[in-house]
Formats: sequence, C-alpha cells, structure tokens
Amino acid sequence: MSESIRYCETHTIPYFLCDRQQTLQLSMLVNYMIKVSSEQTAQIAKPLQDDYFKDQPYSWIILQYEFEIERLPRRNETVTFETYAQEYNRLFCYRTFHVYDEEGNCIVNTVATFGIMDLKKRKLIRVPKAIVEPYKAPFSSRIRRVVPPQDVTLSQALKKQYSVRYFDIDQNQHVNNSVYLTWMMDTLPSEFLVAHQVKSGVIKFEKEVSESSQVISYGQVVSDSEQMNTYHRVMCQEAISARATFTWQKRY
Amino acid sequence: MSESIRYCETHTIPYFLCDRQQTLQLSMLVNYMIKVSSEQTAQIAKPLQDDYFKDQPYSWIILQYEFEIERLPRRNETVTFETYAQEYNRLFCYRTFHVYDEEGNCIVNTVATFGIMDLKKRKLIRVPKAIVEPYKAPFSSRIRRVVPPQDVTLSQALKKQYSVRYFDIDQNQHVNNSVYLTWMMDTLPSEFLVAHQVKSGVIKFEKEVSESSQVISYGQVVSDSEQMNTYHRVMCQEAISARATFTWQKRY
Repeated sequence: MSESIRYCETHTIPYFLCDRQQTLQLSMLVNYMIKVSSEQTAQIAKPLQDDYFKDQPYSWIILQYEFEIERLPRRNETVTFETYAQEYNRLFCYRTFHVYDEEGNCIVNTVATFGIMDLKKRKLIRVPKAIVEPYKAPFSSRIRRVVPPQDVTLSQALKKQYSVRYFDIDQNQHVNNSVYLTWMMDTLPSEFLVAHQVKSGVIKFEKEVSESSQVISYGQVVSDSEQMNTYHRVMCQEAISARATFTWQKRY
Repeated sequence: MSESIRYCETHTIPYFLCDRQQTLQLSMLVNYMIKVSSEQTAQIAKPLQDDYFKDQPYSWIILQYEFEIERLPRRNETVTFETYAQEYNRLFCYRTFHVYDEEGNCIVNTVATFGIMDLKKRKLIRVPKAIVEPYKAPFSSRIRRVVPPQDVTLSQALKKQYSVRYFDIDQNQHVNNSVYLTWMMDTLPSEFLVAHQVKSGVIKFEKEVSESSQVISYGQVVSDSEQMNTYHRVMCQEAISARATFTWQKRY
C-alpha cells in the first residue's frame, strides 16, 4: 500500500485571526487548511492538473469538512499544519489535516471531502487516477460514512441575513468556504459564543453562492444534560447552500 | 534630539488575506499595522502603561490613518513591517509604519494618529510624558496638518447597510478599526475594485461602533481627467462614525 505524501507548514497565529477569547476563528482554521492543501498541490501536482483541466469545464470543489477539536490555536502560538491525501474512491477524495502545538500534541484533526465537478453538467465526474497519483494516496472503494448535519427546525431557529461582500468571493467567482462558517457562527447569540468552544462538527456544502447574492443563515442551539449542539442552515434563493452541526463545550 | 526605537516584523502574506488581484486587502494592512505597534508596546512599554491605566478610565484610541501606497504586498510575498513613534504633542501621538519588500524597497508608508481618551468624559486627555517615554519619540508642539477626508454627497452616493458581526468586535468591545475599511471598500462597485488600486488615502475615526449596531456605509466615485477619488462616510444611529477619501489608479 502506498504511503501518502505529507506536507507541513508552521505558522504563528496573529491576533487579528482570533476571536474574543484569543483563539483562532474556525473560519480562519479553514483558510489555513485550504492554504496548506493548495501549497501541496502547487509543489507536486499543479502542472499536471492545470494541463488536465485546461480544456475541460472541471473544477475541484470541497463538499464537506469534519472537525475534531481538542483546542484551537491561541493568539501568537506557533503551530504546524500537516496535510495529506488520505484515500480516494470513484467520486471522492478524502484529505486529512492535523494541527500540532509546539510540544507535538495534535490539537485539531479534520477531514475534508473533495470532488471534481463538471461545471457545465453540474455533477461530479469520476476522479481521474492521473490527477491524484502525485499525492500517493491509496484507492479504496469504501465510501466514508459520516453522520450528516442535523437539519434546523426553522420555526425555532435564529435567523440573520447577509449580503455577499466583494472580499467573500474567491478565484472561482464563488463565496469562499470559510465565509459560511462566519455566517453560521455570527447567527448564534454572542453570550453563547463567549462561553462555549467548538469540540466537533461537520459542515456540508450543497450549492455555491455567487457574487451579489443575499443569504439567510439559520442557527439553533439544542442542548440536553449531556451535550450542547448547534444546527445550521444557509439558504440562498430558496435553495440550501450549506448545512452544519457543531458540538460545543463550556470554556474554562 | 532623541532617536525613536524602531520595531520590525517579517511576514509572508497568506492568500486568504488578499483580494481577487492577489494583493493584501487594505483592511488586512491595517491589521498588520495594529499588530506590530501592539507588539512594540508589549516589548517596551506594557507594564508601565498597564500600571498607569489600571485605575483610570483611559484608553488608547486610533483617530486617523494616512496611507501612501506604491503597491500592496502580494500573495506569498515576504515583507517587513517597520514601525516607530514619530513624535507627540499635547494631545496626539504620531506613529509611522513602513512596509519593505525583499529588495528593501519601501512599498507602503502610513502615519497613524493616536490619542488617549477619557472614556467617561469622552474627551482626549493630555498625553502623559511617562507613558510615551519608552518609545523615545520627540515631543513637538506642531500639530500635523492633513487634508481632511472630503465628505460624500449623500444624494449621489452608493449605500450599503451592515450589521456588526460578533467577530468584528475587538477587546475594547468596539468594532475593530480594520472593519470600517471593509465596509467602505465593499460599498464600491465590484467592477471598480477589480480595475483599480488604492494609491493614497486618509481615514478619520469619529465615533466608536458597538456590538449589535447597524451601520450605513456611503461611498462615491468622483473622477476627472487627472484623478480618481472615492469619498466615504460610515454612519451609525445618525452619527458619523468614520470618513475617508482614497485616491486610486488603474491596475496594470
């Protein structure tokens, strides 16, 4: 079995990417993840992929992130982001991300699901072996089973409207992945955000949002004696753009 | 005459702080500036200032930025941010920031005006010599003369409304300085932002914006054969929060 190629970058977290508790914002964690995976691609696979995609209406898209968070990096903390392609099947590529503190403890563990979309037909194409070969991840026919995000009960949900901003748009002309997390978190009450931190979660992207759109972000806090969860849905023009569930714990 | 103490930090600009043209967003330039000036204070003046402020309703506030921009740092470019206290007078402290590229060219030159506010009386206090002594900047009775931002003609201005977001608030419980620049830029047409870059500007902060507020950002493009300017005003509850003028040039 092949050994996936690992890629690492070390960064010191500036204060302006942190929340009021001085820990990295979840949206900025996602930005660092996209950064390290893009850099790995730039190093080992870019000419090959550019060549393959150049006459085709194909594009990499991110379908889902799963988060397991022991703790988020703190302001001015130096951490190492590691990533590697984990395995792929007919339609999906799974990529792992770890964040390590200076003592080598893994503090964040995430898995991203990527696919390649035919932008004309609006459907996923079969992952071409040649495109992913440089990452040295194994093919496996297994489809990863993940509990999907729980849907919000709209009548009980908090609700905020957002206009897509100029700086929300990335090079694909769509809203960058990380922005959905800002919309989802911002819809929750600030007293809740001040007192809690994310422990785990899953976000599923269903439909891109384009420039000049309006979205509505719904969020719902659901807790019992054992667990505190939030459910999220982002809607754009009557369609679901993204859904997510997060599990929280009290901050110490 | 004393020699101001200089402080430098070198950073590589991640893609997610850049705009669609792959250059650092102006709001993120401001974030880096606040970062380096805070770090200098942490290194040479923090215990002294904490002690002085601890029983007083005093706080540093930023009153104005003046920008001169040869070009903004690019994605993945490594640049050095330099700062030093330039001089101070009875009410104002002037701080200089430079950004240098790897060849040592100064590509950005800015001056920030700081003051110390009595938060109860809502007015500036006289700058205490002891507080600024560690920076070794000279006292000078000169007040810096700057052409103030040109006001917008509301009837001709573009207009967008923004709700303050959870992550917009900084440790003083007010909207962070950099967010005003996002609001101002986002109000301009995207075709304009794609085709132009900021050459110079001045932003004046007049009144803080607090959590859960709504603001309206007005922006106006005014050009003649010689110059292209934009005028900006951010209003919150009928009061002016900030005003700015920027001069632009076509992107190459």
